Amino acid sequence: MASAAAPGWPALDPATENRVRDSIGRQTLLTTLGVEIAGLSAGRVMLDLPYRADLCQQHGYVHAGALTALADSACGYAAATLMPDDRDVLTVEFKVNLLTPARGDRFRATGEVVRAGRTLTVCSAEVVTWADDGDGNPGVSLVRVALMQATMMAVTPPRPGSRG
Amino acid sequence: MASAAAPGWPALDPATENRVRDSIGRQTLLTTLGVEIAGLSAGRVMLDLPYRADLCQQHGYVHAGALTALADSACGYAAATLMPDDRDVLTVEFKVNLLTPARGDRFRATGEVVRAGRTLTVCSAEVVTWADDGDGNPGVSLVRVALMQATMMAVTPPRPGSRG
Amino acid sequence: MASAAAPGWPALDPATENRVRDSIGRQTLLTTLGVEIAGLSAGRVMLDLPYRADLCQQHGYVHAGALTALADSACGYAAATLMPDDRDVLTVEFKVNLLTPARGDRFRATGEVVRAGRTLTVCSAEVVTWADDGDGNPGVSLVRVALMQATMMAVTPPRPGSRG
Amino acid sequence: MASAAAPGWPALDPATENRVRDSIGRQTLLTTLGVEIAGLSAGRVMLDLPYRADLCQQHGYVHAGALTALADSACGYAAATLMPDDRDVLTVEFKVNLLTPARGDRFRATGEVVRAGRTLTVCSAEVVTWADDGDGNPGVSLVRVALMQATMMAVTPPRPGSRG
Repeated sequence: MASAAAPGWPALDPATENRVRDSIGRQTLLTTLGVEIAGLSAGRVMLDLPYRADLCQQHGYVHAGALTALADSACGYAAATLMPDDRDVLTVEFKVNLLTPARGDRFRATGEVVRAGRTLTVCSAEVVTWADDGDGNPGVSLVRVALMQATMMAVTPPRPGSRG
Repeated sequence: MASAAAPGWPALDPATENRVRDSIGRQTLLTTLGVEIAGLSAGRVMLDLPYRADLCQQHGYVHAGALTALADSACGYAAATLMPDDRDVLTVEFKVNLLTPARGDRFRATGEVVRAGRTLTVCSAEVVTWADDGDGNPGVSLVRVALMQATMMAVTPPRPGSRG
Repeated sequence: MASAAAPGWPALDPATENRVRDSIGRQTLLTTLGVEIAGLSAGRVMLDLPYRADLCQQHGYVHAGALTALADSACGYAAATLMPDDRDVLTVEFKVNLLTPARGDRFRATGEVVRAGRTLTVCSAEVVTWADDGDGNPGVSLVRVALMQATMMAVTPPRPGSRG
Repeated sequence: MASAAAPGWPALDPATENRVRDSIGRQTLLTTLGVEIAGLSAGRVMLDLPYRADLCQQHGYVHAGALTALADSACGYAAATLMPDDRDVLTVEFKVNLLTPARGDRFRATGEVVRAGRTLTVCSAEVVTWADDGDGNPGVSLVRVALMQATMMAVTPPRPGSRG
């Protein structure tokens, strides 16, 4: 669970990093799925999903819903890194293209801010995996698995405990 | 885990129902999330997700990724009910609007075929929940939580066990 | 260019109807494409596009861009009918599935509000045409041509003439 | 109406370039809107839309439908450049985010192939314009106006003249 900024992107100030890590930690679905933080930068967040046999569709590939959870959170937190401390992020909508069956040992969603507005932020995310070369050398080529285009909204956070 | 056809929609013949139930049963993510079959008809599939605290985003509402898994499978199997027995379904893409925070005890995705083609099938899904009336009477009004528009593709199924 | 409310939907009060008609009239692209108002109700707007040979793609069917202009405006004005008089509508995003080649003499987009919020309104639209029966009887069956799912935003209108 | 390949992308062989140019020339909507070819490469197509007052929405900005026509054709022909000569391209679906009001003298859609399959090709497009610097120096900074994520399908072309 590395903490490095995404290469080439500005690092987060410590307060924002804490806020974002706290919020990610409260997304219980990510814990259930086994998601790991792979990189946090200003405007760019990378989340990893290691393959598990209990996250699949009918052919044993990772289910589009699990990849979407990964990409949605990567986009949402990429947007959140650029928001003031008193704002929180909600997903308005997203669109996902599945490019190839999600076969691999690890999946990485990289969510990036395309345009940050005061209320709405448009993000995109790629989900990739690493394929071996057919000769048993693992992870030599990068495979794009899914592509997301998403709209996020800055909201005033609900008070803690407001869900019954 | 009721088996009735969706009201007003044609029932499935037993062979198709078995094929679809078998395939749903192999989607291990659905088991992990606790998804239940609520109705199978020709061109329409209803899947339920009971609320669980380990499926949430940072405010304690059900995560968009879990709702998407539900709606994607409802759309995919709605498409599958209209395909010949030797075909299987893959998700090409979907788009989801989150209409309101997913607060509720149970979420139901109803996936329907909008247009079935030989290769591509367009589907839509609504995810709803039931809200109480503020006086402690549970589930009196229906709340639309999410809306999906999706494209599914008929494929020749991969051979069993083809994933290493 | 009928002015009737869409069947089964509440009529607009005259002030809102004037506001919406004025705004539609200022959408110069709609005039260029030959779009006609087919129905205005609270939360539902129907716009028609008669076939023209100069609005087509490479096979002589109406271009997806023209159908999208029609559906986008139908969704946007459906949202606008439910907004206060001092607000205007902008398109945040939309998703369109093309269901079948757009062959026909007239295309009708019906845009409806799915959920109206203070800032964001989610809409859907269907574009249909009428097919003859193969025996020369025109328009006997309805064909769905395209499906849109869209997000609209209420904004404070820019001052008149603010574009240089 | 330059004919150069997009910078850094492989040029088209003459037969493919002729096929694509012929097909673009048959898209009568593009002629109606005044669209110009700005670059054709293998897997990447750039189309320009000069501003015209008759292509606007209610505030005098270019209508989302016109931008969508531009981006859809850029994506479609980007996909077509990678298809065999006996195949033609149809749009399955697209999703568009409008990033900022479309204010500018010229809009350029760059459509690129993200993944080319035998039947389906996933593409993305950006639409940009050029903003002056507020001191009357035109076009010094690039502004992203819209973002498209699209699915295209390879089909056997219909016979010429098949539309009545």
